[in-house]
Amino acid sequence: MASLGHVTPQSKHFAAPLPLRSGASIAGYDLVYETYGTLDARRSNAVLVCHALNASHHVAGTYAGQERSEGWWDNLVGPGKPLDTDRYFVIGVNNLGSCFGSTGPMHVNPATGRPWGADFPVVTVEDWVDAQARLLDALGIERLAAVLGGSLGGMQALSWTLRHPQRVGHCIAVATAPSLSAQNIAFNEVARRAIITDPDFHGGHFYAHGVVPKRGLRVARMIGHITYLSDDSMEQKFGRALRAAELGYSTQDIEFQIESYLRYQGDKFSEYFDANTYLLITRALDYFDPASEHGGDLAAAFAAARGIGFHVVSFTTDWRFSPARSREIVKALVDNRIDVSYAEIAAPHGHDAFLLEDTRYHGVLRAAFQRIAAATGGGR
Amino acid sequence: MASLGHVTPQSKHFAAPLPLRSGASIAGYDLVYETYGTLDARRSNAVLVCHALNASHHVAGTYAGQERSEGWWDNLVGPGKPLDTDRYFVIGVNNLGSCFGSTGPMHVNPATGRPWGADFPVVTVEDWVDAQARLLDALGIERLAAVLGGSLGGMQALSWTLRHPQRVGHCIAVATAPSLSAQNIAFNEVARRAIITDPDFHGGHFYAHGVVPKRGLRVARMIGHITYLSDDSMEQKFGRALRAAELGYSTQDIEFQIESYLRYQGDKFSEYFDANTYLLITRALDYFDPASEHGGDLAAAFAAARGIGFHVVSFTTDWRFSPARSREIVKALVDNRIDVSYAEIAAPHGHDAFLLEDTRYHGVLRAAFQRIAAATGGGR
Repeated sequence: MASLGHVTPQSKHFAAPLPLRSGASIAGYDLVYETYGTLDARRSNAVLVCHALNASHHVAGTYAGQERSEGWWDNLVGPGKPLDTDRYFVIGVNNLGSCFGSTGPMHVNPATGRPWGADFPVVTVEDWVDAQARLLDALGIERLAAVLGGSLGGMQALSWTLRHPQRVGHCIAVATAPSLSAQNIAFNEVARRAIITDPDFHGGHFYAHGVVPKRGLRVARMIGHITYLSDDSMEQKFGRALRAAELGYSTQDIEFQIESYLRYQGDKFSEYFDANTYLLITRALDYFDPASEHGGDLAAAFAAARGIGFHVVSFTTDWRFSPARSREIVKALVDNRIDVSYAEIAAPHGHDAFLLEDTRYHGVLRAAFQRIAAATGGGR
Repeated sequence: MASLGHVTPQSKHFAAPLPLRSGASIAGYDLVYETYGTLDARRSNAVLVCHALNASHHVAGTYAGQERSEGWWDNLVGPGKPLDTDRYFVIGVNNLGSCFGSTGPMHVNPATGRPWGADFPVVTVEDWVDAQARLLDALGIERLAAVLGGSLGGMQALSWTLRHPQRVGHCIAVATAPSLSAQNIAFNEVARRAIITDPDFHGGHFYAHGVVPKRGLRVARMIGHITYLSDDSMEQKFGRALRAAELGYSTQDIEFQIESYLRYQGDKFSEYFDANTYLLITRALDYFDPASEHGGDLAAAFAAARGIGFHVVSFTTDWRFSPARSREIVKALVDNRIDVSYAEIAAPHGHDAFLLEDTRYHGVLRAAFQRIAAATGGGR
């Protein structure tokens, strides 16, 4: 399989206000996006890839002059890959409020002339989907062959089928959930508290102080990492391995390899991720709950998605969004007699599995995209 | 069942240096303890109760003039209760390095005339056990009818059988593990980083600054709480229940009940728990690994415990110290043909179950203590 080679992000400005779920709206925003492959003459082969917490529009390919700049789903998306860019026109878009190019808290709030910071409007999965729909309008794409996402990206893919069902042929939702559990919200809340109570957060307006709440970001990322890996894979990878030959008997120094790994991940993350974005994105996760508008009845929510084909994938060792949560989605679809295929992949890597290359997992997605191509008559 | 009524803590001073596992030693320390019931003439009915992270010598009974001052295991220990103080002489002792009375980081370091702070020697489960053994010497108790503990307390109970096997008749180890997993260490490390990177920690010498690293302690406690509760019990208790009638769309305010609960627990904890003690106790947890001295062979470690009777109890929904970890202990004992009973209690409460009143659980412990009484001929 060839690589996509060099790709280039693009940007679109949207002058019209986007009404948000909170009741607020945002006007004059930019969305950064990338596309791979060629839109066919019938404009029938577009696939939108939605990103999760720590990702962006840069789904696949590399940037010229930048080593190790592969997109976050480069193993999946490219010529001859499961999501085959020889066949599909693939779109990755950075969500509103993110810190990778699209308008977010680090950008200037036109009302004040200073960075939005904590005043950036609270955005939801539904708001992101609506913004993505406007981007498709601008690109002249009326209907997606498929929308694909993992984790929080999977929530966006599901939301597309509820908000814009006429515009979606197929939905592929990987390692996701129909809503966060209390435990999921709890982990998010601890991460948020770590950030918000960092004295360098300054109520979310730290940019003006020339500081970054790195301590909070580090702790947030460390917590996140624990929930991304399975207990078993952490045990396999690190176990109780020590960093030095002998114990140092210290409460502050690193003794175990797992500590070293977590600190490294936390440090790295705190160098580039925006604290306000972290708050916004974890809140978008918390809020997503399509059943809530239907008295908690998820099947009632998915009645809107009739006619769309679904592919749901979960991983056995994912304890963040366990297979049971995916089965809730499948059940709600089946209750509506919606066409759905479900694969529960025996993978050891926990939630992170959705980003990794696994033969069975990629085989399932390859088959799904081949069936979608056959169904839509798209591609070569 | 009657309550124990009012109890009174006592204190003993130990002038002789206690050699610690790290190679350091501590001299001139105090241990605070409580006893309930009456030591029989043969001094054969003593039961030592070892405490976990956030507990103390105050195992049962209440303090005169203090409302809601029940000991942390009051539901288990008292007249007619599973650990029956009409039959047994029960001892609770606060461990070295704790913040509930025994010598710890808040006390004055005789070498400097200032609080020990981060200079308090690193203590291990084995050190605690040795200190407890000295307290028994001082009380004139050569041999324990039983040693009992849950969680970190269970580790101490196990350690007793390895370090002082001649002094232990029976060991009751509840909701514990033969060592922490990588994931367990990871959670401890995040909590420690939250505390250590709190600017009010001042390298562990915050007492001199008149501040307390409350932000770090809050985050540490919130993380702890998530691991003490099962996913299911959190879902049952809080689910996605909102605090207000409607969403407020805020990244910083409380939206969900689970957030309110966690913040409350964190705030409360940060008011009374010592940050240096938190570091010391989580490290003692990390370090405990009796198999490590035997090339990782837990059965080889437990060869020292032959002749002792064991009762091991785990809870199905405990994901901090899962039943699989208890089964490792049981297997190591069985490999040594050591007498062991094992109960895996179907309880919904996660790790916290060991502190709660559950009919089956308490029935198992009641039966264990009845068999111990029959075996030792102790009591009434």
